[in-house]
Amino acid sequence: VKTIKKIGGGVTAAAGFVAGATFCGIKRKKGSTKPDLALIFSREPAVAAATFTTNKIKAAPVKVSMAHLKSPSTRGIIANSGNANACTGPEGVCGARQTTEAAAAALGTEPREILVCSTGRIGVRLPIEKMEPRIPQLAKQLTRRGSLAAARAIMTSDTFPKEWAVSFEVQGRKVKVGGIAKGAGMIDPNMATMLCFLSTDAKISKRDLQKALSESVEQSFNRITVDGDMSTNDTVLLLANGASGCVIQPGSHGWNVFKEALNKVTRNLARMIVEDGEGVSKFVEVQVRGAATYQDGRKVAEAIANSTLVKCAWAGNDPNWGRIVDAAGYSGAKLSEEMINVYYNGLLAVKGGAPGPAPESKLRQVVRKKRFTVCVDLQMGSAEYTAYTTDLTEEYVRLNLSE
Amino acid sequence: VKTIKKIGGGVTAAAGFVAGATFCGIKRKKGSTKPDLALIFSREPAVAAATFTTNKIKAAPVKVSMAHLKSPSTRGIIANSGNANACTGPEGVCGARQTTEAAAAALGTEPREILVCSTGRIGVRLPIEKMEPRIPQLAKQLTRRGSLAAARAIMTSDTFPKEWAVSFEVQGRKVKVGGIAKGAGMIDPNMATMLCFLSTDAKISKRDLQKALSESVEQSFNRITVDGDMSTNDTVLLLANGASGCVIQPGSHGWNVFKEALNKVTRNLARMIVEDGEGVSKFVEVQVRGAATYQDGRKVAEAIANSTLVKCAWAGNDPNWGRIVDAAGYSGAKLSEEMINVYYNGLLAVKGGAPGPAPESKLRQVVRKKRFTVCVDLQMGSAEYTAYTTDLTEEYVRLNLSE
Repeated sequence: VKTIKKIGGGVTAAAGFVAGATFCGIKRKKGSTKPDLALIFSREPAVAAATFTTNKIKAAPVKVSMAHLKSPSTRGIIANSGNANACTGPEGVCGARQTTEAAAAALGTEPREILVCSTGRIGVRLPIEKMEPRIPQLAKQLTRRGSLAAARAIMTSDTFPKEWAVSFEVQGRKVKVGGIAKGAGMIDPNMATMLCFLSTDAKISKRDLQKALSESVEQSFNRITVDGDMSTNDTVLLLANGASGCVIQPGSHGWNVFKEALNKVTRNLARMIVEDGEGVSKFVEVQVRGAATYQDGRKVAEAIANSTLVKCAWAGNDPNWGRIVDAAGYSGAKLSEEMINVYYNGLLAVKGGAPGPAPESKLRQVVRKKRFTVCVDLQMGSAEYTAYTTDLTEEYVRLNLSE
Repeated sequence: VKTIKKIGGGVTAAAGFVAGATFCGIKRKKGSTKPDLALIFSREPAVAAATFTTNKIKAAPVKVSMAHLKSPSTRGIIANSGNANACTGPEGVCGARQTTEAAAAALGTEPREILVCSTGRIGVRLPIEKMEPRIPQLAKQLTRRGSLAAARAIMTSDTFPKEWAVSFEVQGRKVKVGGIAKGAGMIDPNMATMLCFLSTDAKISKRDLQKALSESVEQSFNRITVDGDMSTNDTVLLLANGASGCVIQPGSHGWNVFKEALNKVTRNLARMIVEDGEGVSKFVEVQVRGAATYQDGRKVAEAIANSTLVKCAWAGNDPNWGRIVDAAGYSGAKLSEEMINVYYNGLLAVKGGAPGPAPESKLRQVVRKKRFTVCVDLQMGSAEYTAYTTDLTEEYVRLNLSE
């Protein structure tokens, strides 16, 4: 058994993947010259898996990518920042399709083999006329070291590009999994979209790839919450091109290692998304233990992680466990006040629904930290759930005031 | 048919009700000498109705008042600010009971005829020893003009006392309904409790009074949202002592007028709660029309009214209808993107899920106002729901940072 090693290379770490980025001037406002169009390409035909926003309002590129995902083979991903292409009517769908057509023409593939994503302001027409002329040149510039450029191009107000990759060995073959991501919620006020593009050179069926991705997203991106808002554009894509020659099948040892490797990548990218953003000063892990059911644990963790009052208290270095117990109480989960214990980094703040032995000064030291864990033990059963969240600062509000 | 007239007098407007307040020094921190204990008394035996927080974690006074509400007769309400008496274990329940016992002894009634409320920080022991010695004197000072003093005593960081009262005539008899309230959510960070004490001199059965109150709360206090958090202490109480001699029964003309009068009082108090608070600069009415069901309308209105991103945009005078459509999309309600219209004060911002004819400059003028209406027409049915909310400002966060 080989361990999983962190490596460089992001979404182009896996064999056979190249990427690049260019500047088209997509954003309505002038000034920035940051590249705003990213292209990722697999030199071999790949299979693709995806998870999309569950918002009933879906951006045009989400609709187009959902359709293109039915293709048995996928070759590339094209993604722009500066415009969400959401709430743009039938014309928006045409724009997203045109983007895939332009990429396919430049790469010598079929449009349905290209997936497309957008992030930016909702309700503004996608300036496809600014993008199309740049795509042929972009397709020629793709390299094995293009991950960072692509990660930068999909950034909106993210303060740093997000890449992660790992490698492991199965049956004597080296397999790589990597990806890039951009941030959610407070990261960018008007562009609250979370995008993540993953690649692997494992040889895996489309169906198994989807299974692995769905489970991995459930324990990473679905656990992070910044403001409870859910974008029209949220998308996670994973391409597997088999270039490593290593076959991964459910039930095998390799499957478990592959899933663990994929989880490492998605968890780290999710953590980076939460930590980024000028409006965030703290990263908080909200653990719920002893829930009657998994859903109950989730309800309590999400009520706490999304509570404006809880998050404001953290920003002010105020332990204020009353707000945490209050949020648990209205979460809808089965619970009994007298059974609730709350720990701050292991210190017992609340015992049986009343003040615990930990002195407030000690609790205050915990919430002053940049990272800490709040654990709520309901003592109603054995289910657990963990959510990742942040504090809520004045700067968050300032960043979200306007364009 | 006589119309409903606004009058003065708040919770002591109705015949037979007196009130007063005193200072006990309940809050842990020194400095303030604002009265912190209010007492309301009906000279005649009254019947009581109530709605309490649906939070599963209920403060000790909520538990005691729920029990005392079973008494066929009610005489008074005692309420303190400065301490929530929540998450205080069995000792907290003793403290709440002792409060009612002290009030009952001073007023010559039974403890179960007294309802009790608290608002303040969670998890701190109620200093009953500071309150008990002041109650006999307080009981002697009650007057027909004591409403304002009581309204002030229950304030936490509210910036003004909240009173409303109306009168109407039925069968030649004058009936009065009035009340006082204190604020929710951002009004006070650590004391997010909403309290409302109502009184009337109508002659009405306990059962009918509860029916009228439940319906009235549903269309007033249940429609206001500031931060989505729900307090452990939220309480609305209504006492009816029959002193007007006017009998109010369901099905009669008087019943309709009584309900309308009660609704006027609760709606105005709810509006004052939303408008108050240093962290609020805007009052926004979120109307949802054309929902498939009432529940769907409610889901959409509440998703919008609770969206951090929507509320930040308003604070920044940014119409940003994309965030509104986005919130509708994740609300869980049945909807179709192509059918959604959104109006800002009647201006069509979104038509069929895409940008509408209203120019952004006009929409910007609307959201710059201190009060405006956002209407979302789903065109899926004929159900409607309206929620009342605010913007989310930097000041809100600052106020909520710490004690």
